[in-house]
Amino acid sequence: MTEFFDRHIGLLDAAQAALGARGYWAPFQEIPSEKLYGEGSRAAGQAAFDALLGQRFELDGHPESYRLGAEESPYGLALDICYPAASPTDLITAAQAAAPALAAASPAARVGALIEALVRLNAQSFLIAHATQHTTGQAFAMAFQAGGPHAQDRALEAVALAWQEMKRYPQSAIWEKPQGKAAPLRLEKHWALVPAGVALSIGCNTFPTWNSYPGLFASLATGNPVIIKPHPRAILPLALTVATLRQVFVEAGLPADAILLAVDAPEGEITQTLATNPAIRLIDYTGGKAFGDWLRENARHARLFTEEAGVNTVTLLGAPDFKGMCDNLAFSLALYSGQMCTSPQTLIIPQGGLESDQGHKSPEDVAKGIADALDRLLADPARASAVTGAIANPATRARLEQACKQGRVLRDGTPLMLSDADDLSAQEYFGPVSFIVQTPDAASAIARATGLAREQGAITAALYDTDEDRIARAIPEFARAGVNLSINLTGNIFVNQSAAFSDFHVTGANPAGNACLTDPAFVTPRFTRAMWRRQIS
Amino acid sequence: MTEFFDRHIGLLDAAQAALGARGYWAPFQEIPSEKLYGEGSRAAGQAAFDALLGQRFELDGHPESYRLGAEESPYGLALDICYPAASPTDLITAAQAAAPALAAASPAARVGALIEALVRLNAQSFLIAHATQHTTGQAFAMAFQAGGPHAQDRALEAVALAWQEMKRYPQSAIWEKPQGKAAPLRLEKHWALVPAGVALSIGCNTFPTWNSYPGLFASLATGNPVIIKPHPRAILPLALTVATLRQVFVEAGLPADAILLAVDAPEGEITQTLATNPAIRLIDYTGGKAFGDWLRENARHARLFTEEAGVNTVTLLGAPDFKGMCDNLAFSLALYSGQMCTSPQTLIIPQGGLESDQGHKSPEDVAKGIADALDRLLADPARASAVTGAIANPATRARLEQACKQGRVLRDGTPLMLSDADDLSAQEYFGPVSFIVQTPDAASAIARATGLAREQGAITAALYDTDEDRIARAIPEFARAGVNLSINLTGNIFVNQSAAFSDFHVTGANPAGNACLTDPAFVTPRFTRAMWRRQIS
Repeated sequence: MTEFFDRHIGLLDAAQAALGARGYWAPFQEIPSEKLYGEGSRAAGQAAFDALLGQRFELDGHPESYRLGAEESPYGLALDICYPAASPTDLITAAQAAAPALAAASPAARVGALIEALVRLNAQSFLIAHATQHTTGQAFAMAFQAGGPHAQDRALEAVALAWQEMKRYPQSAIWEKPQGKAAPLRLEKHWALVPAGVALSIGCNTFPTWNSYPGLFASLATGNPVIIKPHPRAILPLALTVATLRQVFVEAGLPADAILLAVDAPEGEITQTLATNPAIRLIDYTGGKAFGDWLRENARHARLFTEEAGVNTVTLLGAPDFKGMCDNLAFSLALYSGQMCTSPQTLIIPQGGLESDQGHKSPEDVAKGIADALDRLLADPARASAVTGAIANPATRARLEQACKQGRVLRDGTPLMLSDADDLSAQEYFGPVSFIVQTPDAASAIARATGLAREQGAITAALYDTDEDRIARAIPEFARAGVNLSINLTGNIFVNQSAAFSDFHVTGANPAGNACLTDPAFVTPRFTRAMWRRQIS
Repeated sequence: MTEFFDRHIGLLDAAQAALGARGYWAPFQEIPSEKLYGEGSRAAGQAAFDALLGQRFELDGHPESYRLGAEESPYGLALDICYPAASPTDLITAAQAAAPALAAASPAARVGALIEALVRLNAQSFLIAHATQHTTGQAFAMAFQAGGPHAQDRALEAVALAWQEMKRYPQSAIWEKPQGKAAPLRLEKHWALVPAGVALSIGCNTFPTWNSYPGLFASLATGNPVIIKPHPRAILPLALTVATLRQVFVEAGLPADAILLAVDAPEGEITQTLATNPAIRLIDYTGGKAFGDWLRENARHARLFTEEAGVNTVTLLGAPDFKGMCDNLAFSLALYSGQMCTSPQTLIIPQGGLESDQGHKSPEDVAKGIADALDRLLADPARASAVTGAIANPATRARLEQACKQGRVLRDGTPLMLSDADDLSAQEYFGPVSFIVQTPDAASAIARATGLAREQGAITAALYDTDEDRIARAIPEFARAGVNLSINLTGNIFVNQSAAFSDFHVTGANPAGNACLTDPAFVTPRFTRAMWRRQIS
């Protein structure tokens, strides 16, 4: 049935137009406001979240052999929710059983159902905000945005691009080859879309929906059942997603088991067993490089899409607005305690310092300027908490504690700023830690930043400079290193931000990941075309 | 410079339109006629070929440490041409040195130069026909078509799709986010295309240009230097290609070393050394599954596009035109002695036989019908030679001789037809050997054909049937097996034929290969985009 498709065709058309224009477009409202989400929506979201705590999470008809779940909020609350769980074999069997019906459904049926699910997920954004906050540690406002509407935007982006690719070529054509004076040769040709197979989506602790939605929705749109394996510490946002998708699929006449939840426990993870099953043909992975390497080594039967790690740099060569720069960087460093894949980490300054609207600044002056801006930003505890959120994972806290011992502390606390820790600064150090690094001059600063991107990977880079010629020379250097560059940001635009329908997130051109949200290469390998042809007499 | 682009924009536009329409369109003339190629073109091609024999093949400025080349024509002629050769390290160094200028050139500059090169290659089609005939063993007319215009068509197809992808999104955009009553946030964003890196193209013995051109031209169009490693027995067609490309690149102000020839010797192949060099980011490979597996195992740093092996089947359930069917299949089996990746191999017939316009036919009747058609087709030695050509590789001849001993011979000679060789029939047996296989009934015949496609891979499948309901049921079965299906072909259309701009060659959906000529997934991973963005005040 295509009732959902008919309902959402305007949204789909607008999304396709936005894909092409690359300007600002956000179909889902990012502000947690009852004006936008309806009177009572805030309290209803809180109540819905409270009602889930300590309960069995139900997924009608989902494979279930036992129950698992031990999420604890970084804010101290034990969620105590237990989810249906099944063996990798049972999950793959269920996905395979759902595959033919999902593949046989029309692209419009699948795409319509997925957009309907997004609209329903959007309506649950207050609930999803609580679920995201208490699994990732994000502050509430950020959890609302990143876990709800921004993730939904990214999902719609993937669906719209999948739609374009599925509709790119006609379903049939007449091939008529002239034969001189004889009658032409004529063939009718028909093409079916062939999904790649069962997909595995491996979620992360910090952005369970934002990072998983694009691959999840792209795979479903193109007809591939998805087994979603949440991080054991961040199950709930994805469980809510699976519940909504399964409900809509049932209503749309699509198989509910086209979307399955693979819950596991921290000490009993089933990711490797799933990933090495030859039935798995697509894997979307967000996480560290070590497991990325393991997947490349062991899951070669599957097409792998990754977002891994990197060293995001800020290269400081000049400051047209010194205070604006320090405030902007302070916010970027503090936001969600540096636990974003886009957070800056390594700040590179020529040893001679830089020129600014406030005169010459030595590297020490710059570090102090940023540290002072952090202190200003975080002076009020309530505001500090709203910016930094909580540390998602004990491993990050342990790394933070280690860091203090390995360099000179320029600013203590969260976020931490260090110098004299060049070894640490040259690899990803996930969490609220940044490093000030000095280089001999401006050219070597850019070389350091671009070299780190090329060798360690980088998702973002920032550059501050007053010399337009030098900026012009730096731009292609950063492009060659495959990293997105933000220049002289001040005010309310931050290097960490990546907007759907405009920013391509992760270029795929350096070790930070091979998949780009969302470019055509993210979608095109998820299905192929098979033809039948026949003579027309 | 974009003079070449301006010259060929009409051809590019027509190619893009043809990509979308999927009907018949062939920009390069397939008939070896002086009416089409110019008076004297035939003799000039012969003379140009003769002039190359026994000589040093020159590539101006190409890396050269020594000379190699020991091609022998399957027709007995020793080509005795020696080519410039260099170590893998020297080749990769030269490609890397060419990379920045190739990447910095505009898409229009690259695409214009590539189309100009194709037009010049097309003008050399008689020469390329001789080069192809005397390296692959194809008969002259086929060598002309497949080595010349059909390969050029496939190259233009890849260039046109690469152009579409490079132009898909704007080079820059303004992102303006409303801020309620405050001034909007405004960013200018700019995107650079970032090529993936140095590409390696691994050619095959039987279709050196047709199979290599799509990857080669797609990589160059998107800014990646290409090292082309021809099969040691089929260097000349690709050497001529490299020479033309280098010449045009120089005229276009592009780096000649963006296209390099990696000649090696049969006992001293350098493919593994090249493929495992981490500088190689893209590999296009046509050849057997064993080396495909080796590449998957050892070249994981590169994006791999393959056409490998398969078992192409003919499922015979009914014959609306028995004689037409037998004649059609005879030609498909005999053409180039079964050395096409699209040649049928395993003919599957229900043990109860089939109904036809000539009444009931047992499996033996069908086999005899095809064998008789082969005898008719090949009775005249000159015509036989024009159809079958010569065996390209001694290994194929040895396999042919082995086959006789492993089944019941239904037809001796080339092509050979066997029954009672079910083990051989269930894997690729490259060369002029076909197998008649009986199954209990029609359903199991289709299951056998689709099962072989799924498990062993298949590029083509043919089905003959008179039962329209059964045909309708079979179509999705073959699609699910990821194989292109031709139904009830008779006359001058053959299952082996795959036309650029209409047929997607190899679906990528079964083990016969992961790359499709030419779908978007063949092009999109060859480059990415990197952004710089900056506030607009």
